[in-house]
Amino acid sequence: MSINYQDRLITLQNGLEKQNVDVAMITSPANVFYYTGFNSDPHERFMGLVVDNRKQEFTLFVPALDKEIAASESFVKKVVPISDEEHPFEKLKDELGENITHFGLEMKAVSMYQHNRLSTNFPKASYVDIQSFINAQRLKKSESEIAYLQEAAEIIEKVLAEGIKNVKIGMTELELTAELEYLMKKYGSEGPSFSTTVLSGEKSALPHGSSGDRSFRKGDFLLIDMGVIKNGYCSDITRTFIIGEATDKQKEIYAIVLKSNQAGIKAVEAGSPVKTFDIEARNVINSHGYGSYFNNRVGHGLGIEVHEEPSIHENNDSLADKGMVFTIEPGIYIPDFGGVRIEDELYINPSGEVEVLTSFPRELQILGV
Amino acid sequence: MSINYQDRLITLQNGLEKQNVDVAMITSPANVFYYTGFNSDPHERFMGLVVDNRKQEFTLFVPALDKEIAASESFVKKVVPISDEEHPFEKLKDELGENITHFGLEMKAVSMYQHNRLSTNFPKASYVDIQSFINAQRLKKSESEIAYLQEAAEIIEKVLAEGIKNVKIGMTELELTAELEYLMKKYGSEGPSFSTTVLSGEKSALPHGSSGDRSFRKGDFLLIDMGVIKNGYCSDITRTFIIGEATDKQKEIYAIVLKSNQAGIKAVEAGSPVKTFDIEARNVINSHGYGSYFNNRVGHGLGIEVHEEPSIHENNDSLADKGMVFTIEPGIYIPDFGGVRIEDELYINPSGEVEVLTSFPRELQILGV
Repeated sequence: MSINYQDRLITLQNGLEKQNVDVAMITSPANVFYYTGFNSDPHERFMGLVVDNRKQEFTLFVPALDKEIAASESFVKKVVPISDEEHPFEKLKDELGENITHFGLEMKAVSMYQHNRLSTNFPKASYVDIQSFINAQRLKKSESEIAYLQEAAEIIEKVLAEGIKNVKIGMTELELTAELEYLMKKYGSEGPSFSTTVLSGEKSALPHGSSGDRSFRKGDFLLIDMGVIKNGYCSDITRTFIIGEATDKQKEIYAIVLKSNQAGIKAVEAGSPVKTFDIEARNVINSHGYGSYFNNRVGHGLGIEVHEEPSIHENNDSLADKGMVFTIEPGIYIPDFGGVRIEDELYINPSGEVEVLTSFPRELQILGV
Repeated sequence: MSINYQDRLITLQNGLEKQNVDVAMITSPANVFYYTGFNSDPHERFMGLVVDNRKQEFTLFVPALDKEIAASESFVKKVVPISDEEHPFEKLKDELGENITHFGLEMKAVSMYQHNRLSTNFPKASYVDIQSFINAQRLKKSESEIAYLQEAAEIIEKVLAEGIKNVKIGMTELELTAELEYLMKKYGSEGPSFSTTVLSGEKSALPHGSSGDRSFRKGDFLLIDMGVIKNGYCSDITRTFIIGEATDKQKEIYAIVLKSNQAGIKAVEAGSPVKTFDIEARNVINSHGYGSYFNNRVGHGLGIEVHEEPSIHENNDSLADKGMVFTIEPGIYIPDFGGVRIEDELYINPSGEVEVLTSFPRELQILGV
């Protein structure tokens, strides 16, 4: 199973053709990786895949220090290095000439600063947004991509299963985080797909909190939200546990979130507006009176990026389609008390069936006893 | 020792005043952290510190799910949550009114997409670049910042000292990476400041390569480039080792890079153009005939971000100044043979003296025997 870059590039060319784009510049690292297989964060340096649709030519511009590795990893074989003292857009002008009239850009990736510089170097250009086209292309995952996503999900579930064996009273959030990230590497991933989140006790009420020095105590909620990157593709799962012993209130909240998670998953269907998945999960929480403790969307797309389209929120009318992968992750977060989130990854396969890519048990588990 | 956010905000207000800015919107997560103490990556959601200089008011807009944590961590106490189904710039308009005429933005942080949305919501606004002002403010590190940077440097040196004890023939790059990242957490950092880089053998010739499955062999170069974040501040160090036994050619290259590193460090002086530090280090490598194997700048600034201003390259005429922190990291990278880099962090203190923040031994060490 491998990625067909040729296909991806042809689809891109056809899309650009339809938008009358002469030349497109693709600079989001995730998109460069998608079309070339070269996975690199250039930091403040310039990296861009340039598609000259007048000549059917592709050129990958990279920082000079990445020339060798780009040449070996990129499917696009024409690689032009830019050294630290050169100006990227002057180099582009040297390669492309200044007579570009319809310049395709990812409007969310190009800064106002870059826009100014482009306008100076390509005075005849008007700019065409190619972001939606690229997003739509990436939204539909191929079978190879699903295999990679599945592998990333399997690794993180192994990490979780192994990692929670070490949980004990007195251990800190950061200690468990270190353990989990060690296992991510040990099990062959490229590393975490986002900042590994271990939150205990009242801190579990922070949907975006970060692991710290807090030690686990008896009766704590323990929320673990994490993922890995494998072959450039991400996983993302959340499970919430109890340390030592659960109160009735904790059990009640857990049961509601689990019911909400299941309702969200059950609602997923090709052809339905994605907002219905949010609404179905949210209704369960609302009906138990905890609606004010669930203040974010129920899920997000997942692929090369850990957050990508579609955004599963209650106002998103766009329709779910075959090939989409996204999370369902309802939660109840009660300040100063604690929170529960249960997050799974879903995939709508080419036959329109819904597959849950994550299979870690969802029943409440008591740890550290 | 703690950060004086009040001072930072007053300096910012004065800078905006001089540029006739009515309202400024600061969205780079590093800059939001710099001015508020709230350290968060909002991913695709919107986060922004808005300075209303007409009323001397500060407002921090955050994703709704970060409301609690922002309120507890931010120095700016007016926090406005934006939920997933709201439009951030409409929310801004509700708060600020649409009569903004001089709107200050970080031109490198605001995308063309956001610019379009701003123009729709604030039709009277013209945009003022506040990026240079902010960069200049961040360039000059305070004593508290130096204490944090020093702490981050000390942690990474402890990690390096401990980590290399585990090196042995047959171990893979990823295994050592996992070990090092475990130690980073164990020694109290928040995590790596960039992707931990362990490169062995011929792979050490890739200035931006990534750790993989390659196993260490006798006679390999072993290049380790890594850093941690502590209190939101970064460290960054590179040392290159030999596994088992060194050839004369390896020793020769190592000696040249070390001489270059020392020449670069010795050149550092307040009041000199920063390019001279690059040139002095580069001259050593050129004079030994390896100039074509050193294709990148000699260093970069360091602080909240692992790459920030100043960029130490041979065309940068700007002058070194008190308060600056940056790396000196010459290297020789010979394709299919291997590479050596020796990287240190330098600080020009308030008296104009140069302090080297990294002190890990620079003499060639043979490991794994």
